[in-house]
Amino acid sequence: MENQTPFVIKQVTDAWYLQVQRTDKLFASLSDEQLQKEVSPGRNRGIYLLGHLVAVHDRMLPLLFGIERLYPELDADFVEAPDKTRDLTISVTELKTAWSRANAVLAEHFNKLQPSGWLEKHTAVSEADFVREPHRNRLNVILSRTNHLSSHYGQLLFLKN
Amino acid sequence: MENQTPFVIKQVTDAWYLQVQRTDKLFASLSDEQLQKEVSPGRNRGIYLLGHLVAVHDRMLPLLFGIERLYPELDADFVEAPDKTRDLTISVTELKTAWSRANAVLAEHFNKLQPSGWLEKHTAVSEADFVREPHRNRLNVILSRTNHLSSHYGQLLFLKN
Repeated sequence: MENQTPFVIKQVTDAWYLQVQRTDKLFASLSDEQLQKEVSPGRNRGIYLLGHLVAVHDRMLPLLFGIERLYPELDADFVEAPDKTRDLTISVTELKTAWSRANAVLAEHFNKLQPSGWLEKHTAVSEADFVREPHRNRLNVILSRTNHLSSHYGQLLFLKN
Repeated sequence: MENQTPFVIKQVTDAWYLQVQRTDKLFASLSDEQLQKEVSPGRNRGIYLLGHLVAVHDRMLPLLFGIERLYPELDADFVEAPDKTRDLTISVTELKTAWSRANAVLAEHFNKLQPSGWLEKHTAVSEADFVREPHRNRLNVILSRTNHLSSHYGQLLFLKN
């Protein structure tokens, strides 16, 4: 079998970009007012899911590339605490900007990565564990985060009229 | 770069199986009564999303392998028509069985496929188009369907108390 590894990896990263773009469009179509609403009664608000997605994507910078995060301050409100337990000081507009910026910075680093780099370990796994579990590579993270995004995308759709 | 194509393809199929398993668990945890409810006010009912997912996965049999579907009769109620426009004659229990069976039959065929088979065209693309668009392969279908499943999984979660 011919070495199609770069081709297959591109299919995986393209699936990531597709979900990010769909979500970009959805966020762009939702007003501040709509994003302040719960996606379903008693569930997370749109603004919480927006902040949560920014934080989770931003966390991919240290996880995949060992580099500093852009928005570490989001974790307290959008990862560690459930929605509606803390007063948010960040606006929807600021979060939308952060969403675009975190994904753009990730894309910059994705573009610099050689195909073989996707099969290297991420920073949350030790060298010893990686020998035993070679699937704990960067590709696994992007596959998992693409599905995480799709899952919340499905929920955010309920904010549309 | 070493030929890691089979390894990478396994990561993609493992991501599919993981989402299917999560959804299995979710369906198993939801009662008939819960699945009769709308996932969010005015949105699809659980039973509709269950039937929809069975139909979409069942459609992968001809799409990927050119073989006959198990449940072609589901399309009228769960793909072509929106929810709550037709009287359903199939029960939640029957749909849960069909869900398991469709995924099991898909898994059988996935297991028989060589890694190179994932990079072959699916049946909805012509030979000529496939030359120009080689990403329209079986792998693309499973990547796309995994995200489709994740998206509805996120919505079905709202049926849990």
